[in-house]
Amino acid sequence: MESAQKQGSDPLKLNMKIVEELLVRFLRDEIQKAGFTKAVVGLSGGVDSAVSATLAARALGKRNVVGVLLPYKSSNPQSSKDAMLVAKKLGIGAVTVSISEMVDVYCEAHKVRDRTRKGNIMARMRMIVLYDVSVKERALVVGTSNKTEIMLGYGTLFGDTACALNPLGDLYKTQIWQLAEALKIPDRIVKKAPSADLWIGQTDEGEMGLEYRKTDRLLYYMIDERRSDEELQRRGFDRRFVKKVRTMVQKNQFKRRPPVIAKVSYRTVNVDFRYARDWGT
Amino acid sequence: MESAQKQGSDPLKLNMKIVEELLVRFLRDEIQKAGFTKAVVGLSGGVDSAVSATLAARALGKRNVVGVLLPYKSSNPQSSKDAMLVAKKLGIGAVTVSISEMVDVYCEAHKVRDRTRKGNIMARMRMIVLYDVSVKERALVVGTSNKTEIMLGYGTLFGDTACALNPLGDLYKTQIWQLAEALKIPDRIVKKAPSADLWIGQTDEGEMGLEYRKTDRLLYYMIDERRSDEELQRRGFDRRFVKKVRTMVQKNQFKRRPPVIAKVSYRTVNVDFRYARDWGT
Repeated sequence: MESAQKQGSDPLKLNMKIVEELLVRFLRDEIQKAGFTKAVVGLSGGVDSAVSATLAARALGKRNVVGVLLPYKSSNPQSSKDAMLVAKKLGIGAVTVSISEMVDVYCEAHKVRDRTRKGNIMARMRMIVLYDVSVKERALVVGTSNKTEIMLGYGTLFGDTACALNPLGDLYKTQIWQLAEALKIPDRIVKKAPSADLWIGQTDEGEMGLEYRKTDRLLYYMIDERRSDEELQRRGFDRRFVKKVRTMVQKNQFKRRPPVIAKVSYRTVNVDFRYARDWGT
Repeated sequence: MESAQKQGSDPLKLNMKIVEELLVRFLRDEIQKAGFTKAVVGLSGGVDSAVSATLAARALGKRNVVGVLLPYKSSNPQSSKDAMLVAKKLGIGAVTVSISEMVDVYCEAHKVRDRTRKGNIMARMRMIVLYDVSVKERALVVGTSNKTEIMLGYGTLFGDTACALNPLGDLYKTQIWQLAEALKIPDRIVKKAPSADLWIGQTDEGEMGLEYRKTDRLLYYMIDERRSDEELQRRGFDRRFVKKVRTMVQKNQFKRRPPVIAKVSYRTVNVDFRYARDWGT
């Protein structure tokens, strides 16, 4: 959206008033077109889900949004407090469903100790609960993955990336921070270190070995401006850093695409049978 | 694939020798391109998963395929027996992981009694186990959804439809039966009434109120030959039947597409940022 682009040196700076309007209209239109009036959002206590829930509440009205808190026994207790603060501030309903027993009953029986495996199981258990609540509430699941996570593949397929529609998927993390300030999300939530909170002490930046502000600038030039590695190096990005990020973007493409189907017939799903999700409605 | 099309009156009849070769090569190539040598397949005791596992064993060798049995306490005991028969016949490894406790710990605490909700939870728990086993085994998840199910939306999103690659997604159910015979899948498995086995007495045809043989013929003319409702009626299909099937195909499009992302930037995932899953490799 060109008109949201601000004049000046930082290409990631957007006119957040325009972005907000656009995303509120997106949620309202898409949910209505699908025949729904309500949304559910998983509230982690982080800035992304706070922004998604705020946009949903503006689009649908606070009575039509349910925030779902999905703590695990080792989750930071501050996460639930921050999630509750968001729900209270918006005046939306909030339900808490612990995933501890669902996760542990499998992980203990099958001795899952590897934290990546366990983290994937936790993310997918949350998806199960969120989708079940959405059926009970006759609501759609609104996603919370941002463009940085989606591009780098920093998310669990069929887990936290699962949703019906995602208002944040085209905004880099640093842009989410800007939008959060425009939406007056409490400072404490905007300022804290981003974390999937899958284990104690985990931070996104620590786990990926990447800094969001620098990575988002690189991703912008690499993806949105389609710059080559040579051009990116000329702009001052380190060669190894460029290579690392490009490799991550490429090797995680499978998380952004539906399963590959072997072509046998004249019209194959997602090959030559392709429509928008609201096709025919 | 035109060359697989047989001459004659039944457009669903394919040369299964050619189809088999094509699908075996598909699995071998795609798994190798992704950097893997192994596959895991969820074995339900039904014909679809029997065919998928057989193709995977031919593509990768029996030592490189693991069948995963995922019974629930109310599953028909015959299902596990049939699944085991397939694994034994192929000589592939088989592991059994009960999903009963994972499902019950949630459904009991939250009083989930609606069988559709419970069925979705079961299908998604199976996905969690299958993906976890695939990490442990350094394998890819090979799917088992056929074209009839995919077109009608008869499957759980992020559940039984979740996989890395699917050799069956372009074959209608009646074509799977033909392929199963060509692959010498035991008769007992090919002949039994298709069922998701999510509750006692469930059959696909009973639940959907549709007959596979008739529906597949209709889907072929509707989807592959792009016939209009008028043409389909002229071919002898009942008006209400045509309407019912077309509505099912359209309203389940969301299950075949990734989540919708609100467009804000120059390049949005799955809008103008689109690559094959093996892009760049």
